[in-house]
Amino acid sequence: MNLKGMYPPITTPFLDEEIDLEGLARNVSRWMQTGLSGLVVLGSNGEAPLVDDDELEWVVATARQGVPRDRQLIAGTARQSTRATIRATRVAATAGADAVLVQTPHFFKTQMTADALVSYYQAVADASPVPVILYSFAPLTGVQLQPATVRRLAEHPNIVGLKESNGDMAQVADHVTQAPPGFGVLVGAAATLYASLCLGASGGILAVACVVPELCVRLHRAASEGRHQEALELQRRLTPLARSVTTVYGVPGLKAAMDLAGYVGGAPRLPLLPASDSAREAIRSQLVALEELAEAGDTL
Amino acid sequence: MNLKGMYPPITTPFLDEEIDLEGLARNVSRWMQTGLSGLVVLGSNGEAPLVDDDELEWVVATARQGVPRDRQLIAGTARQSTRATIRATRVAATAGADAVLVQTPHFFKTQMTADALVSYYQAVADASPVPVILYSFAPLTGVQLQPATVRRLAEHPNIVGLKESNGDMAQVADHVTQAPPGFGVLVGAAATLYASLCLGASGGILAVACVVPELCVRLHRAASEGRHQEALELQRRLTPLARSVTTVYGVPGLKAAMDLAGYVGGAPRLPLLPASDSAREAIRSQLVALEELAEAGDTL
Amino acid sequence: MNLKGMYPPITTPFLDEEIDLEGLARNVSRWMQTGLSGLVVLGSNGEAPLVDDDELEWVVATARQGVPRDRQLIAGTARQSTRATIRATRVAATAGADAVLVQTPHFFKTQMTADALVSYYQAVADASPVPVILYSFAPLTGVQLQPATVRRLAEHPNIVGLKESNGDMAQVADHVTQAPPGFGVLVGAAATLYASLCLGASGGILAVACVVPELCVRLHRAASEGRHQEALELQRRLTPLARSVTTVYGVPGLKAAMDLAGYVGGAPRLPLLPASDSAREAIRSQLVALEELAEAGDTL
Amino acid sequence: MNLKGMYPPITTPFLDEEIDLEGLARNVSRWMQTGLSGLVVLGSNGEAPLVDDDELEWVVATARQGVPRDRQLIAGTARQSTRATIRATRVAATAGADAVLVQTPHFFKTQMTADALVSYYQAVADASPVPVILYSFAPLTGVQLQPATVRRLAEHPNIVGLKESNGDMAQVADHVTQAPPGFGVLVGAAATLYASLCLGASGGILAVACVVPELCVRLHRAASEGRHQEALELQRRLTPLARSVTTVYGVPGLKAAMDLAGYVGGAPRLPLLPASDSAREAIRSQLVALEELAEAGDTL
Repeated sequence: MNLKGMYPPITTPFLDEEIDLEGLARNVSRWMQTGLSGLVVLGSNGEAPLVDDDELEWVVATARQGVPRDRQLIAGTARQSTRATIRATRVAATAGADAVLVQTPHFFKTQMTADALVSYYQAVADASPVPVILYSFAPLTGVQLQPATVRRLAEHPNIVGLKESNGDMAQVADHVTQAPPGFGVLVGAAATLYASLCLGASGGILAVACVVPELCVRLHRAASEGRHQEALELQRRLTPLARSVTTVYGVPGLKAAMDLAGYVGGAPRLPLLPASDSAREAIRSQLVALEELAEAGDTL
Repeated sequence: MNLKGMYPPITTPFLDEEIDLEGLARNVSRWMQTGLSGLVVLGSNGEAPLVDDDELEWVVATARQGVPRDRQLIAGTARQSTRATIRATRVAATAGADAVLVQTPHFFKTQMTADALVSYYQAVADASPVPVILYSFAPLTGVQLQPATVRRLAEHPNIVGLKESNGDMAQVADHVTQAPPGFGVLVGAAATLYASLCLGASGGILAVACVVPELCVRLHRAASEGRHQEALELQRRLTPLARSVTTVYGVPGLKAAMDLAGYVGGAPRLPLLPASDSAREAIRSQLVALEELAEAGDTL
Repeated sequence: MNLKGMYPPITTPFLDEEIDLEGLARNVSRWMQTGLSGLVVLGSNGEAPLVDDDELEWVVATARQGVPRDRQLIAGTARQSTRATIRATRVAATAGADAVLVQTPHFFKTQMTADALVSYYQAVADASPVPVILYSFAPLTGVQLQPATVRRLAEHPNIVGLKESNGDMAQVADHVTQAPPGFGVLVGAAATLYASLCLGASGGILAVACVVPELCVRLHRAASEGRHQEALELQRRLTPLARSVTTVYGVPGLKAAMDLAGYVGGAPRLPLLPASDSAREAIRSQLVALEELAEAGDTL
Repeated sequence: MNLKGMYPPITTPFLDEEIDLEGLARNVSRWMQTGLSGLVVLGSNGEAPLVDDDELEWVVATARQGVPRDRQLIAGTARQSTRATIRATRVAATAGADAVLVQTPHFFKTQMTADALVSYYQAVADASPVPVILYSFAPLTGVQLQPATVRRLAEHPNIVGLKESNGDMAQVADHVTQAPPGFGVLVGAAATLYASLCLGASGGILAVACVVPELCVRLHRAASEGRHQEALELQRRLTPLARSVTTVYGVPGLKAAMDLAGYVGGAPRLPLLPASDSAREAIRSQLVALEELAEAGDTL
């Protein structure tokens, strides 16, 4: 499995607190008209912790209908217990996922030693019908996947890559250096995408790619093809919006940006509240700035 | 509902990864022979995040059989989404819980504004058939229930108390000062139990009370009755073991301590690993020290 | 040396960036008409890091003229290097200090191991003509004096006490429990004063005691004499102002509060800026609230 | 003033706690035989907080004798007060420094607002006879120089650059993007050197450049000339040693590494303790690995 390029961790649209499968299908269809390598359903940006277990199957199956077999459909299936993660992984695989993205368990942070994490991921990878992608997001979860742990896990034939969202360039460099051939290192912190690609990362799973997929794809291509100046300039333009739809305004901000960009965004599930009017205004200005560049001859 | 005295947040025993309801019943029966005011099932120490939704009912029902109606059975029912929390709360109430303990949602930390938290707890309290106890544990979750937020929520007739595990005495003092009459403030950080009782806290929900319930009950009584010197001395003796079964060795350490004290402890559910031999030895020494004091005429 | 009761860590008044020794003398004289046990010059609240080495002597000597021999004059003399700390300690002793308060060196935080700290304090205590008081303020400095380290150091005949500003009740309890007879444990976090006194602390070094010394003295007496309800009530009243003059508005806020209470406050030294108008207003309201209580028959 | 290339923040050698000016001169002479752009005296790695004010002049003057006028001699002159910083700055300029590097004041962290920092740096830049370089190292000091603050300060004609040691690539990118032409952005976190250069940083001030200057210079050249693969490979080799002489073993480790590489390292000033034997061994292995590569045809 070749993890390379840009993947949006797509949102889960809701209507009156229920999943809007039709809206989901519409979004997927539009993303598949761009140069994205695939997409991720039910990651953090898909509000996975707010989605019930019996809804997982429908989200994956609906996305699968829109994602052709030559692009990758990845499903987030991490739960806090090993057995629940395995159960969700099997459901996702059956429903059509090409791979699963599994965040470190983290509720019992201090107990998540390297040994506990290795044993967790090995059990999941042994049981999973599809390849497993590791996922470390320490600023959110308080749990680190150290490079040495990733190296041990990368030996498992069913573990094929890593999503690294810590924004720590030294760790990205370590992961890339130590990875066996074919092991994908995807970054999750958009503001460091270009720097990470310089260091050898193979792509990214970025919230902002839900909103401006072509801009992200172009940045990845520019960096891959050695057009460093262009990549740096695209990074500079991407960063403000990327921050708005993650650290600044969160999933509600991401959904607001999608609404403004013509996707089905909508309200998040409670207890998340919709983006405030001022958040929406700030995001609108950032989008307008990007669009003006596009009209001046640039594709977003 | 009068929240006062000591409550152990009990562990969930497992046998080969399945819940051991018989072991649970044996533990409950023994705790009920002490001066505990009641107990809490499926809190963090009950490995709630590792327990499946369909297991909740059986744990509550089994505990209920052992907890007489004049003591309080409290069930942890927090989920990340509002709707899942309400669903779990109703199941727990039907299965016999006298009240529910609801930790702040925290996966989307930065979005958990005071408004989001108020709206979450009001929705849960409106829907809950039984009284609701707020639960703030910022060092673990990254989400604070500020005194001003607690004060707003305490006006809801179905919100009857707060478990505060931050170990911040200034906040405990604030909560106590602002609480309306009858609103219980229970602390969750054992090392600060006596200091918190001085400040007016009404009791505690402490892991160490699973292991040495009588010692905790005596400390609470001594403080309530103004025997400050005795309370301070009990606190001093309690603290090392209390740390071992929480911050130092976590739930695996708590279960090991219970094994050593004659309760059904056992292994935690994966990915949690059992306590190491050295952890077990450290805990054994602490228990022996406490037992020697007991044999010298002191009750634990 | 008996460290017991309340000590204000006094501010250093400036006029056009130069030390105002006359203003200092006026303040000291007024504080000495209260029940304070003594005072501390050139601690953090004395802007010690902003005071030049050649100014130290004059500040100590001026304070000494106002502090009678039956009260204690303590001088902050910590520098980052061992030799500079010893030099400042000797100057302060010669100028009349009864004891020195020595904060942990902290610029090279990660190198401040227990061994480095023990060796530092032993060298200072060996060289100091007057008793040494340890000082740990981890939230500011990132360096902890662990209870085990304090215990080792307390064996030195010239180390007589500890100021603990971490606000961590479990550590205060540890320090008190382990301290040899006569070793003073003074707290620096005003919001936890009463709780700390319950745990056996012998007093406090509190910024707020610069502003409302009698209120602090009364709280200490009430707690010492077992009048817990009165102490708790005084704590409740003290806390808001105590926060304003430390964590919320810092030294500029403390100086503004002193101006309002009739002491010589004035502007801090640059780069510290004076308190804003809104800070000043907030502090004024808190003082008015305290004064109204006083007029209603209560002494501040 | 053109800040570009690699600068070591040199150590201050001591003999029996006194400054070893001869050792300093020997080191400087050797560094000047490499491609370094200049050097920095009395930064953190020069143990500046442990050096007395009256020693500053001699260190600068001694270094100046060895640094030709076509390379840059930069002196760290930050103190906590504005006036002491200005005084040290003037001394350094008189003694021969080409520029001064001024770390944010940080003892009163919470008071270091953007306004306070702007006013501090403007006063220093107004008074300084030589150009001023800003210095932000938030992980150590807790004080951030936000990109917006740097942009305001960069308008001052006597502020010519920034050392940024936070290791945050998004901030490096922001600084580079906003900097006026000719404003140098030097990074201080060696593990992110190559990534930072990709983003447009003009060079680095790196502890590891005290030990393997040529390796650092080659990395900078490779990146500048678009040989990305070579730069990445050099970064990979540099990182382990770079960590040992900073975050892992600190200044004592840096001095041990210098001893091993034939420079005058020696013991740090107390309270810093010399590197342990195991630290020394770890560093030796890392140096041997680098030298073997060199013997295989590579220059270090």
